[in-house]
Amino acid sequence: MSLPDSLQNLIKRFARLPGVGNKTAQRYAFSVLAMSDEDTSALASAILQVKADIHMCPVCGAYTDNDSLCDMCTDEKRSDDIICVVESARDVFYMDSTQNGFSGKFHVLGGVLSPIDGITPDKLNISSLVQRVKDSHVKEVIIATEPDVEGEATAGYIAGLLKPQGVKVTRIAYGMPIGSNMEFVDSMTLTLALEGRREI
Amino acid sequence: MSLPDSLQNLIKRFARLPGVGNKTAQRYAFSVLAMSDEDTSALASAILQVKADIHMCPVCGAYTDNDSLCDMCTDEKRSDDIICVVESARDVFYMDSTQNGFSGKFHVLGGVLSPIDGITPDKLNISSLVQRVKDSHVKEVIIATEPDVEGEATAGYIAGLLKPQGVKVTRIAYGMPIGSNMEFVDSMTLTLALEGRREI
Repeated sequence: MSLPDSLQNLIKRFARLPGVGNKTAQRYAFSVLAMSDEDTSALASAILQVKADIHMCPVCGAYTDNDSLCDMCTDEKRSDDIICVVESARDVFYMDSTQNGFSGKFHVLGGVLSPIDGITPDKLNISSLVQRVKDSHVKEVIIATEPDVEGEATAGYIAGLLKPQGVKVTRIAYGMPIGSNMEFVDSMTLTLALEGRREI
Repeated sequence: MSLPDSLQNLIKRFARLPGVGNKTAQRYAFSVLAMSDEDTSALASAILQVKADIHMCPVCGAYTDNDSLCDMCTDEKRSDDIICVVESARDVFYMDSTQNGFSGKFHVLGGVLSPIDGITPDKLNISSLVQRVKDSHVKEVIIATEPDVEGEATAGYIAGLLKPQGVKVTRIAYGMPIGSNMEFVDSMTLTLALEGRREI
C-alpha cells in the first residue's frame, strides 16, 4: 500500500520541524487526518498567521507583532544600562523566562560566527550592537550565546570589539544544570563548574 | 515578555498534535517563524490538502484519495479470503507495512467498544463487517485491535458475532517485541509470550 500523495507530502513537511523524524511525522499527519475540518483549518491558518503578524524588532531583533519596536525596547521599566546578547530571536523568549526576570534590553545576533559556513561578522547583527553601545549609556553587555565552539568564538569576538569602548562585557555562567546528576554531565562541564565555584 | 498572540495561538495548535507538550509546541512554532515564507505556505497547504484529498474507502474504511474504493479493495492480487480488522484507518498503513506483506483485505472499525464513553457496537463499523463476511467467501477474519482492555473486549465481541457464520476468527499474537529486553517488558506480556510459545 502506498500512501496517498497528499499524505506523503504532509509527512515530508512535518519531518522538517526540529527533532521530528519520519515516524513522528507520520503520526502527526495521521492525527491531522483524524481532526475536524475546523481544527485543520485553524492549524493551517495559525501557521500562516504567525508569519503575517510577526516581524523582527528593528532595534533589538526580537519577535514582535507591534508595528515597529517591540514591547521590550519601549518598556520604560527595563533598564537601558544592560544588554543581553543572544543568538536567535527565540532565545529572547527563553532568557526572558528566567526566574528573577532579566530586566535589561536584548540584542539578537541572528546566528553565530562560523567562517566554514560563510558566516562572517558582517552577516550578523554585530555592527548594530557596537553602534547601540556607542550611542547609549550601556554599562554591561551579557553575552548569552550557546556554550559551544561557535558560541564561544562569537562571544570572544564581540568582547574584543566592545571592551575598548569601556563597557563591561560578561558571559553567562557554565556549570551543572539544576536537577541534573554528576553521572550525566560531561567532564568539561564539571571542570567549568569547578572553575566557576563561588563562596557560599 | 508575553509572546505575540498569533505565536501563542500556533503553540496551542501544535500542542494538540499527539505527544506534543507545551515545550515541543513552542519549539515547532519558533521553527515555523524561522522558515521561509514558501515553506510556511507549503506546510499550511499540505495540512489543508490532506483533508481535501483523502476520504475513507466506503467498503473497508481505509484512507484513500481515489474517487471511490481504495487501491486495496480493488487490487486483484489481494486475497478475498482473509480480512484483517483494525481499529483505525491509520492502522491499515501500519499492518500493511509488515515484512511478509499481509495480502488480504482490511476492515476499519473506526474505534473500539467502550460503553463508558458511549461507544457501543452501533457506533462502530461492525454490522458492515458482519455483512461483508456474509456476502463473500471470507475464510478467516484476523482481529488486530490493540492489546488493551477495549481492544480485547472488541475482539471478543466480534468473534462472538462471526463464529456462528462458520468463519475462522483469529487474533494477532502477543509476545516480546523484537529488539526488546526482558527488563523492559511487563510481566503480563511475558506470561502471554510463554503461553503463546511455539516449537522451533
